Amino acid sequence: MKKIKHPHLPLYYEISREIIAKIQNGELKPGMQIPSENEIIKTYHVSNTTARRILLEIESQGWAVRVKGKGTYVHRKKIERSATRILGFTRNMIEAGFTPSTKVLKSCVRQKGYSKMVAGRRYFIKGPVFEVHRLRFADHIPMMMEKRFISMQFCPDLDKNDLNGSLYDLYDKVYNIRLSEMIQDLSAVMMEPDILSCFSLEKSIPAILIEGVTMCGKEMILELEESYYRGDKYRFTVRAT
Amino acid sequence: MKKIKHPHLPLYYEISREIIAKIQNGELKPGMQIPSENEIIKTYHVSNTTARRILLEIESQGWAVRVKGKGTYVHRKKIERSATRILGFTRNMIEAGFTPSTKVLKSCVRQKGYSKMVAGRRYFIKGPVFEVHRLRFADHIPMMMEKRFISMQFCPDLDKNDLNGSLYDLYDKVYNIRLSEMIQDLSAVMMEPDILSCFSLEKSIPAILIEGVTMCGKEMILELEESYYRGDKYRFTVRAT
Repeated sequence: MKKIKHPHLPLYYEISREIIAKIQNGELKPGMQIPSENEIIKTYHVSNTTARRILLEIESQGWAVRVKGKGTYVHRKKIERSATRILGFTRNMIEAGFTPSTKVLKSCVRQKGYSKMVAGRRYFIKGPVFEVHRLRFADHIPMMMEKRFISMQFCPDLDKNDLNGSLYDLYDKVYNIRLSEMIQDLSAVMMEPDILSCFSLEKSIPAILIEGVTMCGKEMILELEESYYRGDKYRFTVRAT
Repeated sequence: MKKIKHPHLPLYYEISREIIAKIQNGELKPGMQIPSENEIIKTYHVSNTTARRILLEIESQGWAVRVKGKGTYVHRKKIERSATRILGFTRNMIEAGFTPSTKVLKSCVRQKGYSKMVAGRRYFIKGPVFEVHRLRFADHIPMMMEKRFISMQFCPDLDKNDLNGSLYDLYDKVYNIRLSEMIQDLSAVMMEPDILSCFSLEKSIPAILIEGVTMCGKEMILELEESYYRGDKYRFTVRAT
């Protein structure tokens, strides 16, 4: 039997803390199975009532999720992204404690402009429009792939800039542009093979597709966007009133 | 060769209008293939440049989507749902021009209460909590499945009411409750077999999973929610500032 360090605390609580500590120190990693009811009974010599209570405690604290008929798994923490706040990937990642990086996959200039439906309305940006596809990483894990279509009327010579950092910083510092509003459609789609290959994933997974328009003043369309956020890594938070 | 009615309009425009009219009158239904480039060349005796322009026009007007290497299909219109406005399914469906209906799948009372993580915080409703699972239809097509966990401290005898209509109406009319705020996590998931069977779907599709908490005053938690919106039928709209 393992030593229990604080005998004045309830046993179930003590043991649940011990297992949670293993999750916190990384011994039990996201997606790994935590000890089952039977394993807890054997390891800690407790009753099945206590074992169940331990699992319930770990689960209710948000450290693990029970999958019916399969077991209890360490919670895969997803990145929370507010959908109602204009926030670039770079800053979102830094706030979440990751190191962001970017790989430009493709870029070109569309002389004829570009248009897109968002929230039931078609938005059109007159040419020339700068199109750039970028893969965005957190600690070297590809998290999302974005296609952006940016007005070169607002951002002349955009293609001459370094596109591996935050575009929001470029808008702000190089072009002195203030973003005023963003309208986005969120939908759930399966990743198509071309998108999937960007993420080096073999099997298709669901993605959150964001189709959006960003304004920099009344009726002034700065950019259109089509981004694929990995469904296994992201969650969007919305506040409604 | 078909008769062109307004010879003063560009030919490509004229023909694209003719095809769009077929989509509008329902002759070409959502998901159906529209004439290919070759079919347009044969039917209308136009060049391939014009045929391509016709397809581009129909596509850019948002009536159809091109699937690489497959053809061009009539756009399946998704239901737009605002994520930043508190809006029940019933009213959303009526606004979208559908007839809503509801099937109660299961209900029970949880004496011990219920808790859920939303936006990184755990929310707890003290027992008794009324749990109800409902399948919601638009014109008899199952659109979403919701699990709701409602405080019976705020809604005593909730189980004695008719649960086939709008719960928001019950809150308002029977319990005189005003909803103040809603916090929701949106994520993209594959439908699990038990959820899939509710929708009578054979193959798994992505869903938008909404996990939310609804307040009826400061720190007053009225309900927790876990809802699965069909990814092929829904799109959520968000405005960020």
